[in-house]
Amino acid sequence: MSGPLKVGLVSASDRAAGGVYRDEGIPALKDWLSKVVASPALHFEERLIPDEQAVIERTLKDLIDENGCHLVLTTGGTGPAPRDVTPEATLAVADKVMPGFGEQMRAVSLKFVPTAILSRQVAVIRGKALIINLPGQPKAIKETLDGVFAAVPYCIDLIGGPYIETDEALVKAFRPKSALKGKP
Amino acid sequence: MSGPLKVGLVSASDRAAGGVYRDEGIPALKDWLSKVVASPALHFEERLIPDEQAVIERTLKDLIDENGCHLVLTTGGTGPAPRDVTPEATLAVADKVMPGFGEQMRAVSLKFVPTAILSRQVAVIRGKALIINLPGQPKAIKETLDGVFAAVPYCIDLIGGPYIETDEALVKAFRPKSALKGKP
Amino acid sequence: MSGPLKVGLVSASDRAAGGVYRDEGIPALKDWLSKVVASPALHFEERLIPDEQAVIERTLKDLIDENGCHLVLTTGGTGPAPRDVTPEATLAVADKVMPGFGEQMRAVSLKFVPTAILSRQVAVIRGKALIINLPGQPKAIKETLDGVFAAVPYCIDLIGGPYIETDEALVKAFRPKSALKGKP
Repeated sequence: MSGPLKVGLVSASDRAAGGVYRDEGIPALKDWLSKVVASPALHFEERLIPDEQAVIERTLKDLIDENGCHLVLTTGGTGPAPRDVTPEATLAVADKVMPGFGEQMRAVSLKFVPTAILSRQVAVIRGKALIINLPGQPKAIKETLDGVFAAVPYCIDLIGGPYIETDEALVKAFRPKSALKGKP
Repeated sequence: MSGPLKVGLVSASDRAAGGVYRDEGIPALKDWLSKVVASPALHFEERLIPDEQAVIERTLKDLIDENGCHLVLTTGGTGPAPRDVTPEATLAVADKVMPGFGEQMRAVSLKFVPTAILSRQVAVIRGKALIINLPGQPKAIKETLDGVFAAVPYCIDLIGGPYIETDEALVKAFRPKSALKGKP
Repeated sequence: MSGPLKVGLVSASDRAAGGVYRDEGIPALKDWLSKVVASPALHFEERLIPDEQAVIERTLKDLIDENGCHLVLTTGGTGPAPRDVTPEATLAVADKVMPGFGEQMRAVSLKFVPTAILSRQVAVIRGKALIINLPGQPKAIKETLDGVFAAVPYCIDLIGGPYIETDEALVKAFRPKSALKGKP
């Protein structure tokens, strides 16, 4: 039996990191994942950091290279404002860019708000981990994860991570038939 | 009260710049904006230039850095042909890339013509300005702006430009509730 | 009268190149094109190679620069796994990136499987040739080509290749009216 799914959660926000306001992104991510992921057990690594590109890059590298995270979700910092640098930091540590996640997250959000096209969210592979940028607002986090998570378990399979099973009433993980043969 | 919305309009076309045929892109852009933008007053800076990458880059920089444009719209030069270099020039002067605009402009145009996927349109942020590549044909300009402009006023807010109000019968500018609190 | 349409077909797969299993991608591509392209005559150049980035790059350059291919279709190697490097090789030999193809191929595939967002397929222009990355499975190849090929003939026109006519019962090639005037 494999070990836990190690999930890094990163909120890049000067105000939240400085205690000016309470971060709502990380609690929303934990809540969503705890409901949807049926197995293996979840182990969270949380980081509340200022939205500086170098700090975000260092945090992403540390979570994957040192802490062995299989999945890293960031929250916030993906808009057009000068302090929104999460996508740049994510691309800077990428081995492979996964353009389909950003496209689909924007397409999903666009059903709710026309300003979804302002989001610059990306997803990338670094080593054996998938990094996905998510919005800052709990409502938008849920909408976005609902829209793309079905593809995450198979992606984690392909890069060598643990076999994720979901509560199918919430999100039905999809794997091609050939992959199902290899199910542990 | 804030000053006017400064809009740069750039048509990159050897033939139009050389007087071989009449540019239809800039008049179509002015017409559309004059109808849709209710306030503040519009101030246009127009440039008809050859489609050479270095000239386009210089023009974009000049419009934003020297003329203080908040929004720059280019027309034409986004296809696969060798002389189509507007996206390259736009990316070369970018501080931030806004992938959602290109995706959504193509998705919108695809409802009209299957060759919409040949368009390489991009949008970027440079300093306090948003640059958007648009098609060359007046009909396609209207279709594309109709499809994405609802997100432009909030984008301009986020990068420090004037507060844009639209004729809501034509395009309803969207801002999240939190942003509406700050309405001047 | 113009000569044939030269089509390069590239399957990048260690196992297929090593004879471990039979490549199904190239036969599926030939079958689809032979049915859909009505004229001019098709001339195929086939390459079964290991999925190493340098080999793929060299093969793409050779097919276009030395063999004069107008269209090059690759099959497989576009996922998130470490050996999936076809998009990187394709981008490395690109003169122009055509983002609309990747977006639309993923959007089309997403109607069939949620894991379509894991595909990193790109299309690019190199010289006078269009390169498109396609999936590895025959079923997915057909779905994807059905979804984007209507735009390919006009793209080939714009970069100086032969005038392609299709069997309109299968795929109706689209060209704007202005282009139809120039039909040979």
